This record gives sequence, C-alpha cells and structure tokens, in this order.
Amino acid sequence: MSVRVGILGGTGAVGQRFIQLLDGHPEFELAAITASDDSAGTPYRDAAKWRVDSPIPDDVGDITVRATEPDAVPDDVDLLFSSLPSGVAAEVEPDFAEAGYVISSNSSNARMADDVPLVIPEVNPEHLDVLDVQRDERGWDGALVKNPNCSTIAMVPTLATLDRFGLDRVHVATLQAVSGAGYSGVTSMEIIDNVVPHIGGEESKMETESKKLLGSFDGAEISLHDVDVSASCNRVPTLDGHLENVWAETEEDIEPEDAEDAFRDAPTLDLPSAPDSLIEVFDDPSRPQPRLDRTLGGGMQVAAGGVQSTPSGVQYNCLAHNTIRGAAGASLLNGELLADRGWL
Amino acid sequence: MSVRVGILGGTGAVGQRFIQLLDGHPEFELAAITASDDSAGTPYRDAAKWRVDSPIPDDVGDITVRATEPDAVPDDVDLLFSSLPSGVAAEVEPDFAEAGYVISSNSSNARMADDVPLVIPEVNPEHLDVLDVQRDERGWDGALVKNPNCSTIAMVPTLATLDRFGLDRVHVATLQAVSGAGYSGVTSMEIIDNVVPHIGGEESKMETESKKLLGSFDGAEISLHDVDVSASCNRVPTLDGHLENVWAETEEDIEPEDAEDAFRDAPTLDLPSAPDSLIEVFDDPSRPQPRLDRTLGGGMQVAAGGVQSTPSGVQYNCLAHNTIRGAAGASLLNGELLADRGWL
Amino acid sequence: MSVRVGILGGTGAVGQRFIQLLDGHPEFELAAITASDDSAGTPYRDAAKWRVDSPIPDDVGDITVRATEPDAVPDDVDLLFSSLPSGVAAEVEPDFAEAGYVISSNSSNARMADDVPLVIPEVNPEHLDVLDVQRDERGWDGALVKNPNCSTIAMVPTLATLDRFGLDRVHVATLQAVSGAGYSGVTSMEIIDNVVPHIGGEESKMETESKKLLGSFDGAEISLHDVDVSASCNRVPTLDGHLENVWAETEEDIEPEDAEDAFRDAPTLDLPSAPDSLIEVFDDPSRPQPRLDRTLGGGMQVAAGGVQSTPSGVQYNCLAHNTIRGAAGASLLNGELLADRGWL
Amino acid sequence: MSVRVGILGGTGAVGQRFIQLLDGHPEFELAAITASDDSAGTPYRDAAKWRVDSPIPDDVGDITVRATEPDAVPDDVDLLFSSLPSGVAAEVEPDFAEAGYVISSNSSNARMADDVPLVIPEVNPEHLDVLDVQRDERGWDGALVKNPNCSTIAMVPTLATLDRFGLDRVHVATLQAVSGAGYSGVTSMEIIDNVVPHIGGEESKMETESKKLLGSFDGAEISLHDVDVSASCNRVPTLDGHLENVWAETEEDIEPEDAEDAFRDAPTLDLPSAPDSLIEVFDDPSRPQPRLDRTLGGGMQVAAGGVQSTPSGVQYNCLAHNTIRGAAGASLLNGELLADRGWL
Repeated sequence: MSVRVGILGGTGAVGQRFIQLLDGHPEFELAAITASDDSAGTPYRDAAKWRVDSPIPDDVGDITVRATEPDAVPDDVDLLFSSLPSGVAAEVEPDFAEAGYVISSNSSNARMADDVPLVIPEVNPEHLDVLDVQRDERGWDGALVKNPNCSTIAMVPTLATLDRFGLDRVHVATLQAVSGAGYSGVTSMEIIDNVVPHIGGEESKMETESKKLLGSFDGAEISLHDVDVSASCNRVPTLDGHLENVWAETEEDIEPEDAEDAFRDAPTLDLPSAPDSLIEVFDDPSRPQPRLDRTLGGGMQVAAGGVQSTPSGVQYNCLAHNTIRGAAGASLLNGELLADRGWL
Repeated sequence: MSVRVGILGGTGAVGQRFIQLLDGHPEFELAAITASDDSAGTPYRDAAKWRVDSPIPDDVGDITVRATEPDAVPDDVDLLFSSLPSGVAAEVEPDFAEAGYVISSNSSNARMADDVPLVIPEVNPEHLDVLDVQRDERGWDGALVKNPNCSTIAMVPTLATLDRFGLDRVHVATLQAVSGAGYSGVTSMEIIDNVVPHIGGEESKMETESKKLLGSFDGAEISLHDVDVSASCNRVPTLDGHLENVWAETEEDIEPEDAEDAFRDAPTLDLPSAPDSLIEVFDDPSRPQPRLDRTLGGGMQVAAGGVQSTPSGVQYNCLAHNTIRGAAGASLLNGELLADRGWL
Repeated sequence: MSVRVGILGGTGAVGQRFIQLLDGHPEFELAAITASDDSAGTPYRDAAKWRVDSPIPDDVGDITVRATEPDAVPDDVDLLFSSLPSGVAAEVEPDFAEAGYVISSNSSNARMADDVPLVIPEVNPEHLDVLDVQRDERGWDGALVKNPNCSTIAMVPTLATLDRFGLDRVHVATLQAVSGAGYSGVTSMEIIDNVVPHIGGEESKMETESKKLLGSFDGAEISLHDVDVSASCNRVPTLDGHLENVWAETEEDIEPEDAEDAFRDAPTLDLPSAPDSLIEVFDDPSRPQPRLDRTLGGGMQVAAGGVQSTPSGVQYNCLAHNTIRGAAGASLLNGELLADRGWL
Repeated sequence: MSVRVGILGGTGAVGQRFIQLLDGHPEFELAAITASDDSAGTPYRDAAKWRVDSPIPDDVGDITVRATEPDAVPDDVDLLFSSLPSGVAAEVEPDFAEAGYVISSNSSNARMADDVPLVIPEVNPEHLDVLDVQRDERGWDGALVKNPNCSTIAMVPTLATLDRFGLDRVHVATLQAVSGAGYSGVTSMEIIDNVVPHIGGEESKMETESKKLLGSFDGAEISLHDVDVSASCNRVPTLDGHLENVWAETEEDIEPEDAEDAFRDAPTLDLPSAPDSLIEVFDDPSRPQPRLDRTLGGGMQVAAGGVQSTPSGVQYNCLAHNTIRGAAGASLLNGELLADRGWL
C-alpha cells in the first residue's frame, strides 16, 4: 500500500531533507513538490540549490515544481509535509486543510493552538485524536498536525520518561547547530571561533512546547503539564545536531541508574522511520557528541549521557539531529503515525 | 619602584601569556623563567614554541631558562608566577615558599586548602590575610596564593554582586574555549564541527571554588558560602573566551535591572592590570560573544548580558578571557594585590 | 596639518575597518560618513551593525550618516575613502570626482581603466601621476585612485621585488578568508568543515591587476607587465588573512636566499600607515599562518616564508590581512600617498 | 570464496577505517588485529579509542588484539593490511613477508624501493608484477605492496588520464584535511581560524610517488615518468577530504572538454571496492568541495571540476577522501587486486 505525498516548500534545507528521507520510503511515494511562485514550473533540479550530502534522487530532479496553493496540487495526494516559512504556512496551511489535505507540518505557526496536535509519536501519540475536535470546529476535511521545534524534540523524549518521578522544574542550556537557522541563517563571520548566546524565540518555544507535549489529553482537550522549563539557547559552530545540558528536578529522588533505566525503557513504535530504541544511553560522560552521535538510528534516535544526581533530581546531556529527528524526520514520522492510525 | 618577578613553568600556553602581559608592566620586571629540566640552560626563544599572536619581546627571547627549583632562581626575585602542571606544582611550590618566595599561582593544586588564599582581587581581597595563618602554621617566609579555575573566574564576579539578594542556588552551563586545555589539550579531530560535553574535574572545581571565593573570612578562618552550584561543562570550537549561561536563584526577587545595576556597581581596584570597571553589561541579548568581547579591558574585564527574570531569580550569560582574566592575568592581578598590600 | 576625510559606504565590513583605522589618525580627521538612503539621517551607531573587535569610537557613533551623493557631503572634506559596492561605485564615484573630491577607492570598478591609477604605494607610487591624464581627459577637479583586490595585494609586493630577476610566469593558489566576501558573503553551512575552490571573478582580477601594478609608467601611459599569472582561488574557514602559495618563474636562476634578500629589501615609505618594513620573511617553513601573522605591522605588513628553489624560479608562501592591507588599509595608505604627493 | 585477512596496527585512525570498510566485505573475513604490545591481549573494544562515525561492528569489538609479530598471527590468514607507523612498519613488514604473508600496506616506508610495487589499481595494476622480482631477490614467500600517500592519490588518477597529451610539468597546491595527520596530529589551537602552509615531507612524497605511479614497467623494472611535479601542501580546517588545485602542462594543447573527457574515460575495475567510475567530473566550478563530495562512491571516487585552459595545458581541482581512497580504502583495493590477480 502506497500513499501519495507532497512537500510544501520543498526547495529549502528542510525540504531537501524530506526528499532525502522519502527516497526509497516503503509506504510513501513523492508525487508533488511546491515552492514559491518564482520556482513554480521549473524542474526541481533547477529550482533547488541542492546541498545535502547525497545526490538528488534522479526521478525527483525531474519533478516540475508547483505553486504553493491547493489548486496546484493533485487531488490524489493524501498527505502533505510542510516546511514553509512560518508566515507563509500560517496563511496557506489552513487553505490546504480546508481543501481536504492532511498536513504534517514542521512550521512553527499554530503549534500551541488548542485544537492542533503537537506530536512526537513515541511521546504523545494519543494527542492526535484532538483532530476530531479540529475537524468539528473548523469544518475541515483535511487536518493539520505539528511537530515541535528542533531544540524541544531533543529534550522532551528524555523528560517524558522522567515524568514517572514527578517532573517539577527543568533548566536547559542548548548548544545548537547552524543548520537549525536554515542554509543562510548564520553567516560564517558570526560563528567561526565564536558562540552566539541567543536565538530569537527559541527559549520560549522550548518552554511552552514542552508543556504541551508532556500534557494530557482527556479526549476533548489537551491540558498543559505544569513543569516549569527555563531555557538558555546558544548557537555554536557545528553543522548538525543539537546538544543540550539538562537539569531535571523531580518530586522523588532519583539515582542516575533510575534515569538511565527510564531512558532505555522509552516506548518505541512500529513505524518505518521510528528507531529501534528511542534513546541511546552512553556510559562515557563525554558522549553524546554532535559529530559522532547525530546520525544514530539514521538521525532519528535521541542520545543521552553524563547522567548525574543533583540535590533535587538529575542532570544529563542529550542530543538529536536537528534537521532529521528535529525537523523533516519529525514530520515524516508524524505522517507515518497519521497513516497508521487511519487519518488519511 | 620595580619588583623583580619570575615565572615558574614559563614555556607553556599560560607561561607565554604571563610574558605577554608582563611586557611593559609598570611595576614588575621579568628576571627569571623556569621550565622543565630539558629546557633549562637554553634561551627562552628556543625553549618555548611561541604561539601568542604578538612576537616574543626581544629581551625575553634571550633569557636563559632555568630549572624549576629554588636554588636556580636568584634571591632578589620577590614574586613568582606559577603556571606549572598541577602535579609538579604540588611538589615544588611549597619548596619555593619555604625558601622565601611569594608565589601567585594559577595551578589547580591546593586551591581549597584552609590556609591558602584563593583570590579574585575585586571579589575577596580580604582573604589574602589568611597568609598570616599560612606562615604561622607552615613556618614559611614566603607565601602561596592561588587564583581560581578559568571557568570559575568568569562567573564568580557576577555572583558576588548578586549575593546582596541572598544567593541560594546556581545552575551554570559553560561553553569553554580550547585554549583552556593547553596548546595540545584538544585535538582538531575532536572539536571541528563538534562539542564535547565533558571536561574532567571542571564541574567540581566550579562548584567548590565558588563557595570559597564567596565565603567570608573572620581574620582566622575562611568559611565557605552555602550557595549550591551545579555546573555542566562543555568544550566548544572557540579559541579563547569562556561563555557561561547562568541561572542564579536568590532569596529576594530580582528584576533584570537590579541584577544589571549590581553588575555595573561591582568594585574596582586601583591596580595596573585591573580594568576600569569589572563587569561590562550588554543590552543586546546576543552579547557577550567570545570572539567579539573576550578582549574587553585588555582581556581582564568580565562581560555579562541577556539578563532575564526567572520565577526564583535571574538568568544571564557571562564571559571572560580564559587565559588572561582566567589564568595568567588572574595570577598577575593577584601579584599586584600582594605588592599593593605589602606582602612582598 | 589635518585633512578632513569622509567614507562613502561606511556601514559595511570595510567601512567599519576604515573607521577603526582612522581612529586616532595623525593627519586625517573623519568628517563625514555616507551610506545607502535608508540609513541616511540616522546616527552611525544605529546605522551600522558594528562587528569589529574594538568598540565604535565614541565620537563616530554620534555622526549622522549622510546620503551617498556629492551634495550631501560638506565641501571642506578633501578626501573620500570608498568601499561602495562596485555597481554603486561605478555610478557615483565619477560624480564625486567631478564635484571636486579626491577619492581613494577600494571598489573593484574601473581598476583597469587606462587613466585610473591602480596603486600599492610601496610598489608603484609613480603611477599616481596618471591623474594628470585623468583630469585632462575627464575634466575633473577631483580624482579617482584605486587599490587592487585583496588577493592581489598579498602577492604583488613579493613579485615586484623578484622582477629584478626577470619575472616571467606565476602560478598562485589562494586560501582566502571569509571576510573577503563581506559580512554575509559566506554562510556557515558553506564553509564549516569545508573549502570552496572558486571565488567568482577573483582569478581574473589577480591575473590582470598584477600586470598593471607591475607595469611601467612613462609619464603618459601605463604599460602592462607581460608576466603571465595563472591563479586558482579557494575560500577556506579562516576569518581574516589571505594566504597564498606562489610559484614565480624568472629568467635568471634564483636561490632561496636571493628571493629572501629581495623580499627584505622591499621599499618602505614614510607614511603614517606604512609598516616599517614591507615584507616580513620567516625562516620557519610553517609560517606565515593567517591567525598568527595577519596582524603584523598592524595588519599592513605582508609576510612571506617557505621559500624554495624550483627548476625555473622559486616557490614560496605569502600572506596579508585582507581587510586591512588588502582593503581599508590599502585605500588609507593611498590616501596618505595622495596627501604626501600634493594631490589634495 | 572467502579470504582471511588481518590488520597490522588496527587501533589507530586508519586501522579503524579498515575495520569499517571490511565490515560486510563480500570476499574478505577479518580474522586478526594487531597493535602495540600494551594493547595485545585485550579486546579490540577496549584497545581502540573508536572515533569513526559508525559503531564498532559487534563481532570486531570482541576480537582479542594480538602483538605485531609474525608468530602472533594465525597461519591461515592470507592477507595483511598495514597501517603501522612507518618506523615500525620498516622493521616488521619484511618479517611478515618473509614469514609468508602478503601485505598491502599504507605505511610510507619502502614506497620508492625498486622491487616494491606502488599501486593504484585503476592506474598502474601491471606494476604488481614486480612482485616476481621482489620474491626472487628477497627470497620471500609473502609479498609487500604499497599504496601512495593520500595527497598523491587524489591527483594521480587525473594526471594518468592526461598523459595521452604528453604530461610535462605539474604544479599542485593541496588543501588537506586534519585526519591525514592522524587523530592527534593537528591540535585545535593550530588550525581553528587558521591554515598551516607546510606538512613535513608531503611535497616530496607527491613529487616522487607520482613519477613512480605514472612510470612504465617492462616486466623487469619500473621506470619513473619524467613529469616534473612541484607541490605546495597546506593543512586546512577540514575533517576529511584532500582538495587540490592542479596545473598540468602538456606537450599537446588541450581544451577543457578534452581533459573532462579523459577524466570520464578513466579505467574502472571489477573489484568489490572499486567505484563504478573512477573520476566524477563536475560542471559547477565551485565543486568538488570536501564536505559535499568526499563520500562519492563510498569515499572511493575521485572528483574533479573547474577545468580551464591555460597557455600550456589545463588547470583544475580534484578531491579524494584521504582516509578512504587515500589510505585504508587504497590498501583494501590493492588487496582485492592481489586476490584477483592470484597473488594470495
């Protein structure tokens, strides 16, 4: 069984990752790519400045890029992945949903909307059912599902497993790769021999999205978790892979082994892009490291290490590939979950 | 008035910074350089693999390197700066002190000893007086004074100014430059396009040294401050400048402006290497940055920025040049304080 | 005696270097800064995104930026430095020259025009006299002088000294810093862990500008040198400093010492920004290196090393700071030469 | 048919690449790993500090490391790959060959010896037959085969295809990755924001090895090619992939297309590790780039681009993965050739 899928905004950095990840996908067949109006009508090969370290799949290079509007996308496409700039996404994603398309979107708009599921499949798959509310309220035939921000995704899988100890308060410092800002987001003059201790809006995304992802869904409404997250976000000179230093305070005392066991017991899903185990745990306190560990599980695994006790909980480091597990792969996995749960 | 000074272990990275900082010093005259036995007897120019970005001062290049033992150093040298490996320092620094030399040391040994002052001149100059106890107990004519670890120095000046609000608990994530590990401490294969989230012993140094620096001295004994510091230390691909994300919890509520005012009001000293103001405060939340701000005040100033309120205090970023304010400059300033207070 | 100077296009990367270099200049007083229309009317402090590693001089921060047109610049400004984008420069520099201003320009337009002197003061100061032809032909009261491209400047001073042996053919491979492309010219995704073996137009600039700089001037006309230069230009992950591998073929045989002597004997000028010696020669074959040697002579010196004989000449490496000796400092020195030779 | 193979010096950077490349090899089965005496007797997992970006193959982690001496290696091992330090290799490789082992070695010793084949399989496979002379003269049952230096391998495949036009003289500037110096060969302080224009012995290796590789073999003796190669070698801040700027002068004139056609027509071999085509040619003058193109053909392909005519030939850029095609993969391919030609 094959699902015909499309990509909204397929020429950018995340769009290119979508194409790389969809190449050879067992269930999804790439049938349409949209981009901005000036690219529409040209072959993908010419429209995209391809920078991924594997060549453009041959059949994809020949696809004619379409305009980003519902009329331009064939009706038999069932699922759309979106990596549109959030301003554009805020305008056109509702149009596509209204036109009947199911959208798995990486764009940052609408993530905190009450009736939009914000999902990491291994963490809160049940939130998907808020789509019933969404369809009801908005009168959509399609649907809009979001994945969280790349820095949030690296941390929340670990936090979710610690919630059994009563998650209370979290401090997190991030060391984020330049690819998170898009291909031209960080200039070389800014970041060679340097660190920038500020990423606009990032701290707030981590603080609010975490509360929603860890929240509960009672069939009608998602309640935010009352964990208090305080983030400090830094851009560092790495290409891919967000590393994070986390201090998690819990109601119960935890030994490092308790936390490591919890990490290792994280749920897994039987979906094509889901890793065999969600969290790889390192004994070596110097791991995980971005360059060595970002491609674990094809870039879909989260890595953790350096677990230590603190007076009020544990501290540890975690890592995820920001443009795979943290972006294109996140949307793809949400798409697989949507297919598996019968939402297409 | 000129003081004749020497450097113990003058060929390494910190030793070279000592030489650079002493060049043209208004009060100190470099009279002796020691190194390991295989360098003894050779001109400094040949003994050191000079890597600082200003040339070796001409007269220094011609100095004959001496063995690192009291007999090899002239008696009329009054003050020794030490950047010996800590194992060596633990052996020979007491010998020099016993032989009558006053040593301002950057080496990590003995920093937490009860009768060894661990000093940042603008923070706890009064701790110097524990030298009376030291001389008493050890029967030394000389003296041994320490400065803290480079990562501690970047943070404690800011914490000291916040203690008026009742400093309670601190979380700190560091983004440390490779020079902190010495010239060969971090290989290029380890750190290009990478971050290493572990620096052996560093977290513990930050946690204990901070308590001593912020502690009180009653004329006989230094009492540790009861602040609880929890550190997470990362090596990043920068050359110089340790950047730190700090969350300081205080008994009293603080607004960002309160913290910024406190930073700006940090004490200053009238010593040759002391900066005009101890802490430079940035409004721009993306500052301080290592490459842009590490040389403020000739590398002797601490920079802070990004101050925000948290439910239990403030969070902010701070930065100091790790081999100047955090190492050679720290010892130099301690030496100036020793001279100023009449300990030579 | 003080000359009032202005900067055309003063907010960009080279413009900022002009301001840094003019701060405290013994002869030049900064009296006007122009920028694009949307910056005109605002204080320089707000118009420029300042990224140089020393603070904006206080009095400069308060200067109100002007539009880039002759009417907007005070008449008592005698000398203008230009770092305009070459397209803009091609339009407005002639207007300023016609209005009577003398312009020392770093922009790449018009460098090869017959009546425009392309000058490195220590190499071909006599070419300045082609300004008589320029004024004659164009009817200008002012004048337009150019300095060569940053990659050309690093090499030509060494080639000029080798011409006594009959310079014949040159192969040169460049390893150029990212600042050469402007602040946003090279993205971090392009260059971290990477090299780009192509810089648009750069090879051709090196090949043609060298022939003009090394050419002779008979009082009426500049004749191009017949040296054949073949360049291969690479962008590497360094911030500042262009390093170049040069093979120079000469009619006469040369020993390495001959070349080194020639380098050391390069002419010097008694101008405020001219270095004491033009070319610093290293014995250590691993020098010069960009990070260690780019600030020699305040960034105005050229460094050379690794000189070896080849069957038909010599090979060696050379280096210059691309935004100081290779750009802002080059124009500044040309301005000093213009003042010294009475062209203002 | 499976050949049992071993690795001499299997714990270092190249040794680790051997293990990665042998994992799942269709013909070779890893049966022994040797290392220095202090590692002998311990499981490979503990002996090696594994830094390759794929995990240690499970069965390899459990292999007990052996001493590097013929007695310690099982007799049924037919082929040994060597990545020993050249000093050690010079001592022990002859012992192994005398004991009957066939050695495909990446170590730099003995590459220019008359009776030792220095081979790139697609370039000079016929040189392998000098092994008859080697066995004759040295009385060995085994054999010793070498592959060239990593920087030589990136260039010689392209030069070999140009020899049809009468290869005359070559200038080459290299931009070499840090991994070429081994894991600890280049410190981060040396190379961040820097280039080092000297690699000890490298230029001479390129100059002499090229002449042997391009030389002819008459059944008894290898004659060196009379091409004159002049190299300038630079270390740049890239992790893997040596990029080279080449100027090749030829007796006949060549158009860029002639050179590109020659590159595309390079011979290929039907061996497991040989790429489908030896040289990938890029139209885009900014390619090849190390980070984007070093893994072409699994790291076994050479890439070329930027071909231009010069007055006496062509200039172009080429690239190869220095620790795969330039080291471990080179030896592996030689091993496959040895097996294919019946030398085992």
